[in-house]
Amino acid sequence: MKQILIKITFMLSACIFSLQGQSIDRVEPMHWWAGMENPELQLLVYGENVSDLTTVIQNEKIEILKIHKAKSPNYLFIDLDLSKASAGVFNIQFKKGNKVVISHEYNLKNRKKDASLVQGFDSSDAVLLITPDRFVNGNASNDQIEGLLEQEVNRSDNYKRHGGDIEGIIDHLSYIDDLGYTAIWTNPLLTNDMSSQSYHGYAITDLYEIDPRFGTLDDYKALSKEMSSRGMKLIMDQVANHCGLEHWWMKDLPFEDWVNFQKEFENGEKTKYSNHRRTTNQDRYASESDKKGMADGWFVSSMPDLNQRNPFMAKYIIQNSIWWVEEASLGGIRQDTYPYPDKQFMSDWAGAIMNEYPNFSIVGEEWSYNPLLIGYWQDGKKNQDDYDSNLTSSMDFAMQKLVIDGLKEEESWDKGLVKIYEGLANDFGYSNPEQIMVFPDNHDMSRIHTQMDLDVTKTKMALSYYALIPRVFQGFYGTEILMHDSAKPGDHGLVRTDFPGGWTGDKVNAFTGAGLTDPQRDMQNFMSKLLNYRKSSTAIHKGKTVHFAPFMGTYFMFRTLDDETVVVILNKNEEPMTIDLKRYVEIGLEGKSIKSIIDDSEFVWGDSIDLEEKGVLILTTKK
Amino acid sequence: MKQILIKITFMLSACIFSLQGQSIDRVEPMHWWAGMENPELQLLVYGENVSDLTTVIQNEKIEILKIHKAKSPNYLFIDLDLSKASAGVFNIQFKKGNKVVISHEYNLKNRKKDASLVQGFDSSDAVLLITPDRFVNGNASNDQIEGLLEQEVNRSDNYKRHGGDIEGIIDHLSYIDDLGYTAIWTNPLLTNDMSSQSYHGYAITDLYEIDPRFGTLDDYKALSKEMSSRGMKLIMDQVANHCGLEHWWMKDLPFEDWVNFQKEFENGEKTKYSNHRRTTNQDRYASESDKKGMADGWFVSSMPDLNQRNPFMAKYIIQNSIWWVEEASLGGIRQDTYPYPDKQFMSDWAGAIMNEYPNFSIVGEEWSYNPLLIGYWQDGKKNQDDYDSNLTSSMDFAMQKLVIDGLKEEESWDKGLVKIYEGLANDFGYSNPEQIMVFPDNHDMSRIHTQMDLDVTKTKMALSYYALIPRVFQGFYGTEILMHDSAKPGDHGLVRTDFPGGWTGDKVNAFTGAGLTDPQRDMQNFMSKLLNYRKSSTAIHKGKTVHFAPFMGTYFMFRTLDDETVVVILNKNEEPMTIDLKRYVEIGLEGKSIKSIIDDSEFVWGDSIDLEEKGVLILTTKK
Repeated sequence: MKQILIKITFMLSACIFSLQGQSIDRVEPMHWWAGMENPELQLLVYGENVSDLTTVIQNEKIEILKIHKAKSPNYLFIDLDLSKASAGVFNIQFKKGNKVVISHEYNLKNRKKDASLVQGFDSSDAVLLITPDRFVNGNASNDQIEGLLEQEVNRSDNYKRHGGDIEGIIDHLSYIDDLGYTAIWTNPLLTNDMSSQSYHGYAITDLYEIDPRFGTLDDYKALSKEMSSRGMKLIMDQVANHCGLEHWWMKDLPFEDWVNFQKEFENGEKTKYSNHRRTTNQDRYASESDKKGMADGWFVSSMPDLNQRNPFMAKYIIQNSIWWVEEASLGGIRQDTYPYPDKQFMSDWAGAIMNEYPNFSIVGEEWSYNPLLIGYWQDGKKNQDDYDSNLTSSMDFAMQKLVIDGLKEEESWDKGLVKIYEGLANDFGYSNPEQIMVFPDNHDMSRIHTQMDLDVTKTKMALSYYALIPRVFQGFYGTEILMHDSAKPGDHGLVRTDFPGGWTGDKVNAFTGAGLTDPQRDMQNFMSKLLNYRKSSTAIHKGKTVHFAPFMGTYFMFRTLDDETVVVILNKNEEPMTIDLKRYVEIGLEGKSIKSIIDDSEFVWGDSIDLEEKGVLILTTKK
Repeated sequence: MKQILIKITFMLSACIFSLQGQSIDRVEPMHWWAGMENPELQLLVYGENVSDLTTVIQNEKIEILKIHKAKSPNYLFIDLDLSKASAGVFNIQFKKGNKVVISHEYNLKNRKKDASLVQGFDSSDAVLLITPDRFVNGNASNDQIEGLLEQEVNRSDNYKRHGGDIEGIIDHLSYIDDLGYTAIWTNPLLTNDMSSQSYHGYAITDLYEIDPRFGTLDDYKALSKEMSSRGMKLIMDQVANHCGLEHWWMKDLPFEDWVNFQKEFENGEKTKYSNHRRTTNQDRYASESDKKGMADGWFVSSMPDLNQRNPFMAKYIIQNSIWWVEEASLGGIRQDTYPYPDKQFMSDWAGAIMNEYPNFSIVGEEWSYNPLLIGYWQDGKKNQDDYDSNLTSSMDFAMQKLVIDGLKEEESWDKGLVKIYEGLANDFGYSNPEQIMVFPDNHDMSRIHTQMDLDVTKTKMALSYYALIPRVFQGFYGTEILMHDSAKPGDHGLVRTDFPGGWTGDKVNAFTGAGLTDPQRDMQNFMSKLLNYRKSSTAIHKGKTVHFAPFMGTYFMFRTLDDETVVVILNKNEEPMTIDLKRYVEIGLEGKSIKSIIDDSEFVWGDSIDLEEKGVLILTTKK
C-alpha cells in the first residue's frame, strides 16, 4: 500500500529552464489569479543562492515593484503589480549578468466566479466537523507514503494514523447531506510531515500541499465541487499561529525573525512556550512580558510560533489563505488558536480576505467562556479600544459550557436552566450573534454524550438547543450515533475515535445502520429530523427569538419568521406536569395547530400543555 | 425620650393664607433655586379639591407654562418657566372665581456655589458605608418619635431600631477621617414611617424629609458642611424604583398609573412581585412579559413600584434628586436597585443630574457578577444597542466576588489568584473602570471577615487589593475592627450590627480603643495605614496599572505615576519562598529604595524578594 512520493520532482517541474546547476525549488504561491481586488502579489522564491540572481519579467502588463533579499541567500521576495495583468502564463527570468539562468513559468489563472458570489457559512448552516484521519478510509493506497516521517498506520493506537482521507468523505457526502448538515469543516488536511501524531493536522509542514495520506489537491477540489453541487459549503481549517517543526523553512529560515524566539531555537535552547494567558490581548493592564509570552511563545515544542510582525511572513500567510479560498472554492475558514498570533495581524489577515470576498465567513477559535472575549473578536463589535477584527464569527465556548452546566445542575434561583437563559441573554454584547458558531463539542473536548453523563435525553436536549438558537450550528462526526469517550473522558485520541463503517471490515456500519443499537438508530433519526427541519427553516435561520425566564423546571424559547414559529421546550421534570400557557400569549399561538418536528404528532396550542417526561419538545406551526 | 412630632404643623406652616377651609398640604419641591441649568420646574400641589382652584402667579419673571390636573381632584401639577426669575419669595395664588382662597409663598433661593464646582467622588476617594441606625446614637432624644408607626427601640433585636443618627456620625467624623476615608455613603436617611423594619431606610414614605429618628434636615446639612470642611464628600442613597407602602401618596394616588400594578393594589389583590430577572434590561430576546415582570413588579410587598413612565412621576423623582444635591451640597448619589426602574427613565434621570452638575458622580447598584451588565450601565460604554446611561459609576460586584473566590480557592491553572487577575483584565470592557466602585462587602451581604472565614491575613489581602486597583473604593463601617456575621452568615440584622462605642455604656469602644482585642487594633492600624496612604497617592488615584499573571502562588500589581510606584504583592504560600524579580524588570524598580506602607520597613529592589509568609505586601517608592 505504499506510494512513491513524487513531491520533489513535482516541485521542480515548475522550473522550465535551469542552467549552471542553479535551480528554483519553490515559487509560492505556485500560481495566482488575474483580477483580484488587491492587485499586488508577493512571490516567495526559494533556491540555492537565488539572491545572487537578478529578476526580470518581460511582460509589459506585469510590473516588478520591488525585489527584497532576505538574510538567507536562498530567498527572494518579489512584489508584483498585477493591476493591468490578464490571465495567462508569463516567464520570470532569473539572470546572472546578462545570462538567463532560470526561466520560471508563472500562471495567472482566470477566476472561476465573481468574488461577490463566494458565499460563506451563516446561521442557515449546520457544519459537520470531521477529523479526516478518523472518518472514512476511502483510499487504502495512500495510508502510508514513502518518504514521510511517520510511517506507522495503526488503528489500535488512537494517537497513530488510521488512514481516513478525502476520498472517504466524498464517498459519504450523501450520508452527511441526509443527516441535514450543510457544511463541512475538517481538521487540517495540509501536509504534516511530522514524526509522530501527524494525524491531527495542526503541525503543518507545507502550507500549499494536501497531505498525500489524505489525498491530493485535486481530491480536495473534487470534495469542494461535489459539496457545491449539493449546496454544501467547505470550510478549511487554517493555522496562522504556528507551523510544524518539520516545516521546510525551519532548516533555512529567511530572516532572523521569521519565527518567534528564533535565536533560542537556532541555539538549541529550551523552547519558550506560550504562557497561554489569552486575556493579555485585551487587558489594559497586561505587562509587556506577559503579552510577549502569550503572543510569541510556542504553542507546544513541536510547533514553532510564526512571527506575523515580519511583513513577509504576514503577506505569506494572507496570500496562502486567499489562495486556498480561490483554488478550492471554499465556503469558509476556521482559524485555529485565534488569540495567539499578533492581533493586529489577525485583523489585517481577516480584512484582506473579506476585502477579496465580501460575503465570505471566517470563524476564529478563542477557547474562552468569557463573552467579553468572544464578542471582542467579532467584526462590528464596538470595542472600547476601537479594535476592529474583521472576523465574521467566533466560537461560542461560553454557550457550549452553559448548556451542559444548565442541563446537569439541580434547578434553583441561579442554577440550572437559568444559566442557559442568562447565557443567551449575553447576546446583547455581541455585534452579530447569529454569525457566532455554537457547538455541543469538538475534537479537543469530551464528546457531548460523555459530557451529558451518557444520558440520551439530556444529550437530545442539549443538541436541540444548540441547533435552534440564533447561531451557526456545528456538530461533530459520530454525535448522531452517540459516540462517546466516557472510558477516558477528554482523551484526544479517544474523542477522535474511528467512525464505524469507515473501514473495510468494520462490524458496525453507521452508514448502512448495520450493527447499530436501538438508541444509536434513534439518535440518528433524531438528529436527521432536527437538522433537516433546520435546513429549510427560515425561522431558525433568521427569525425573531423570544425566550422566557425558566419556570418550574421548564424553559420556553420561540423562533418566529412570518407564518413559521418554532417552539423549543426544555423540561427537566422527571414527573408529568402541566404548564399554563397564558404566560406565552404574546407569541400569538392560541388556537394554532402545531406539530412535533421529531414525531410529527399534532395538537392545538391552547391554555396549557402536558409535559409527560423530562426532555425536549421541538414544535412548529409549519405544515 | 419621646418627642412630639411637629410634622403636620410644619408642613402647613408653608401655607401663609387660607380661606374657606381649603388648604394646601404640600407643595413639592418645597423650594427651588434661581439660575438652574434647566429653567423649568414642575410643582406638585396637594390639597383637598385643589384642582377646583385656578392658579395665578403675579410676577412677570415667572411664567406658568401649564397646569395639569390629575385623576384625583386633590393634585395639581404646575409647570413653571424660571428662565427669567431671580432669587426671592413669590406668591402662588389659588383662586376660586376672583377670590384668592390660598396664597402660598414660594422661595427661590440663591445657589450656594457654581454648579461646576460641585465635585462628585472619584478614584481618589475611599467611601465609608454606614448604616446610620447602627453606627452611633448621638442624640438619644430622637430615638422614639410620637406619631410614627414603629415605636419600639430595641438593641437586642437586630431588625428593630437601635437609635443611631446623624448627630452620631457628625460627632465621630474625626475617627472616620483619621481612618483615611474621604467620603461617606449612608443607607437612606429619609423618613420610613413603616410599622416594622424601618431602620434600613429603603421604604421611604416622604422623599423630602429626613427621618426624625435620624435627625433633621439641618442635621443633614450640618453633616455635609462638617464633611466639606474636612475635604470629605457626602453621598446620598436614593431610591427611584420604589417607595414605602406607607408613603403619603399611597392613600390618594394622583393618577391611575402612579405606581405599577396599581389596579391590583387598589383592588386589594396579591402583589405582583418583580421576577428579579435583571438580564431582561439588556436581553435582545427577553419576552415582553418578563420585561414587564422585572421592571413593573414590586421589589417586596411593602414597597410599591413607582411608575417612572408617568411623566409627572418622572419629573418628581428627577427634581427630588436635584433638590437634595443642591440643598445638602452632596458629593454623590448612590442609586438603589438600579436595573429595576424603567431604563430609559434612569438614563434621563442621571442625564438631568449630570446636566446640572457636570462634575458630579452617581453610582448605580446592579447586583450582578457579569461584567457585561456592570459595563452596560456606565456612561461612555459603547453599547451595541446604543443605550446611553449617563451614569458615571456602577457597583463592581464581579470583582468583589472574584477576590473572595481567588483568595480562598486552591491555586491551579484557572483557579485562585488567576481569577482575580483575569477579573481585573475584564476592565477592557468598561468605559471608565476607575470610576467604578469596588467594595469588600456592604449592608446586604456577609461582612468581608466572614467571607474570608475569619482569616485576618486573607481579610487584609482582600482589603488591600480592593483599595489599590483602579477603582473608587468603598468600605463598610466596622470592617476595621473585624466585625463579622459568622454566627449566621449573611443575616441582614447581624451584618448591620451596632458599632461598639456608639452607645453610652458600650463596654467596647472602637473610637477610644477601649476593650478592643489585639487583632482588632492591628486591623484598625492596617486600614488606617492603607487608606491614609491611598488618600494622598496619585499613583493609586490615577496611575498606570500593570499586573502580571500569577506565578507560584504570587500575584504582583504595580501602580505608577511619575516618581511614585506602589507595588502590591499577594502571596498565598504558607512557607517562606524567594521570587526572582527579573520578570518585573519592565517596571524599572531595580536599585530603588522601597518601603512598606504598613510597617515602614525599607529595602532596595534587587534581583529577588523573600516572602516570609502568606499575606500582602504593599510597597512604595515614595519617601
